[in-house]
Amino acid sequence: MNPVKSAEILTVGTEILMGQIINTNASYLAKQIAQLGITSQYQTVVGDNPLRLQEAIETALSRSDCVIMTGGLGPTADDISMEIAAKVAGVNLVRDQASEEKLIAYFTGLGRTVSENNFKQILFPEGSTVIPNNNGTAPGAIVPLEFAGKTRYIILLPGPPSENTLMFQDTVRPFFESHSATRLNTTFVRMIGIGESDAEYRMRDVIEAQQNPTLAPYASEGEVTFRITQLVTGPDEPDLRAPLLEVLQERLGQYIYEVGTRTMPEVVKDLLVRQKKTVAFAESCTAGQIAATFADIPGISEVMLGGIVSYDNCLKESLLKVPKSTLETFGAVSSRTAEAMALGCLEVTGADVAVAVTGIAGPDGGTAEKPVGTVFISVADRQNGLRTRKHHFRGNRAKVRKIATLNAFNLLRLHLLDERTDGST
Amino acid sequence: MNPVKSAEILTVGTEILMGQIINTNASYLAKQIAQLGITSQYQTVVGDNPLRLQEAIETALSRSDCVIMTGGLGPTADDISMEIAAKVAGVNLVRDQASEEKLIAYFTGLGRTVSENNFKQILFPEGSTVIPNNNGTAPGAIVPLEFAGKTRYIILLPGPPSENTLMFQDTVRPFFESHSATRLNTTFVRMIGIGESDAEYRMRDVIEAQQNPTLAPYASEGEVTFRITQLVTGPDEPDLRAPLLEVLQERLGQYIYEVGTRTMPEVVKDLLVRQKKTVAFAESCTAGQIAATFADIPGISEVMLGGIVSYDNCLKESLLKVPKSTLETFGAVSSRTAEAMALGCLEVTGADVAVAVTGIAGPDGGTAEKPVGTVFISVADRQNGLRTRKHHFRGNRAKVRKIATLNAFNLLRLHLLDERTDGST
Repeated sequence: MNPVKSAEILTVGTEILMGQIINTNASYLAKQIAQLGITSQYQTVVGDNPLRLQEAIETALSRSDCVIMTGGLGPTADDISMEIAAKVAGVNLVRDQASEEKLIAYFTGLGRTVSENNFKQILFPEGSTVIPNNNGTAPGAIVPLEFAGKTRYIILLPGPPSENTLMFQDTVRPFFESHSATRLNTTFVRMIGIGESDAEYRMRDVIEAQQNPTLAPYASEGEVTFRITQLVTGPDEPDLRAPLLEVLQERLGQYIYEVGTRTMPEVVKDLLVRQKKTVAFAESCTAGQIAATFADIPGISEVMLGGIVSYDNCLKESLLKVPKSTLETFGAVSSRTAEAMALGCLEVTGADVAVAVTGIAGPDGGTAEKPVGTVFISVADRQNGLRTRKHHFRGNRAKVRKIATLNAFNLLRLHLLDERTDGST
Repeated sequence: MNPVKSAEILTVGTEILMGQIINTNASYLAKQIAQLGITSQYQTVVGDNPLRLQEAIETALSRSDCVIMTGGLGPTADDISMEIAAKVAGVNLVRDQASEEKLIAYFTGLGRTVSENNFKQILFPEGSTVIPNNNGTAPGAIVPLEFAGKTRYIILLPGPPSENTLMFQDTVRPFFESHSATRLNTTFVRMIGIGESDAEYRMRDVIEAQQNPTLAPYASEGEVTFRITQLVTGPDEPDLRAPLLEVLQERLGQYIYEVGTRTMPEVVKDLLVRQKKTVAFAESCTAGQIAATFADIPGISEVMLGGIVSYDNCLKESLLKVPKSTLETFGAVSSRTAEAMALGCLEVTGADVAVAVTGIAGPDGGTAEKPVGTVFISVADRQNGLRTRKHHFRGNRAKVRKIATLNAFNLLRLHLLDERTDGST
């Protein structure tokens, strides 16, 4: 039996082709098989059409050891995945006794009788292993077959994510573990304050020289992540990621905010928890997005008091005690106003540290001196001082606000790290 | 020139194959081309590998009039989409003057010089139309080519969704509109307060009887949209959507908040503008999300003053003047607290109307009496009264907060509509 080294994900469903739902199953399964060290070079989506589906399965099997299909296991006439898989394998569909008993018990439990079309869901390609579904009525299957002289596998899972993911965990992952000879060890290194092209440029020699582990950058809005990936083929292989990480830290250490999987808000939360500090936010152009993003983290009440959304200048004055003269002299988008907002926020909320943001998100409101994307961020600490940064972010309204949010957390992070270095906490 | 009737989406990127990011571009583009009446029978994902990418483009062009590629337009060495597209089209890459000037201006604006690898992003297949990118440094391209005796198109868009979607709207959609023989006329009917299966059940006879126009429901978090779609093949065809809309209004009128494309916040903004009212928000479990969502709309300063994120109870007391006794007697998650928050918000912000939300988003904090998902929403109006609703939303933390946000806008909408009916404004 040859080991499973490669797999493709084949999603079946017109609703994906029409864009009615997002293909989250594919990303879930892709991540799972990547962690198992299985290579995946293709993902495909096709509709419930017999010819196109058969062709897609055969194409996948011609280039990969395994195809993981999702969808098309329902009871209705247009659900054809099992039938086509049997056809490709050259076997018949046969009734599975255990699945039949479970199906009848399921409907009896609901106080209903099994409708005729549900019996379709207990037919599987002969010789396959049934994947039980404890979350719905459609079991899956692992279908072994000979293809071009090699043993290959068709794995069938249902479309609903809650069924799909559990069945992968319970049955498909153990199958891969017993049929695979490799795995991938991955380290993520997250950075802020440097662009993707600049970051890659400074690491190019290493990226090009490396075979295993590999080093690859990718960018998301306002940040860059490097991925160090080692393919491990045996239990005694040494971990080779550390030397690469050292080079990254040497050359780009000043931009790194996380070696691991924590997001920027999670890093900041952990620092606040460790330093036993509470925070509040004074937001103008971000308009609540910083607080809302922080509150995405469960248990954030340990460190976050809340904040003030002073979108209109009248609230900067009335709620945050920004002096009218500051607004008139320097303007609402200025370092002085950002600082006054942060200090006012400290005062009225009683937090240990406050972060204020004021800027021009656009599309209107920019001037030659302060174009759209101009954002001032200020951090005020009850114990020591104030730090303020001026930014000029590129992009549309949504992007400016999102990157301003990220950078507000980053300025708070830098402040908290300095605190720590000072030994003041 | 043969019209564009079919298109495939080809996503380029190892990060999708590794499951690091979800392929939201594919679903966005799929939905857009479906609305244009263009058939799409395949979606594919491949990595940044020259041979596999070339093969994938050629396979797509052998079965569809157009392939829309996303990703692989970055400045780094593994970004090869333009190069491979040029190879498939049999043309050279040439420098685009306008893009070069824009790139230099972009980096000059950042106070940086253009690094050598960025110049890669101004090379396009000869004979192609450049798709400007106003949100990043990577322009796209529409590449016409002859393939098996027909005119076909490769369309290249960058991977970041904020760039991808805007460029589709501004350049690719008009391209398709001018190259397609058919079009879809679509009416969206947006509802809140009814589930998808219930809504579908009540319209099932109509859904099943209709061929053209078609009627189809789809659900997103907390709301249901019906799409009435008529395929139009000539300029003189009558619009057949109105009778279907009438049936919808007859049967489900009470749930409809919009016939058109405005979102719930946009509907609320328009009502506030018309009634010349300002609003402020007092948010506990949503923690700024309502204000931040409202501020996604450009020009929202016309009606939104801002608000208070009173995540911690101390801020409910100090900033929103909620009496300590109310918090102690009824709890922070109660109709009385929601009402006190709304009234306090009116008082301290000076807004004409205030919306307050307090609830348990989870995962912890629920009790038998007030389980996770319990949310109170209150609207207070300077002129007349107070309305409060208790909800119990299902789902995880993110979903509860998102649906609470939607329903906060909805309660404000209902309040503003009542005002209007009363003739009081």
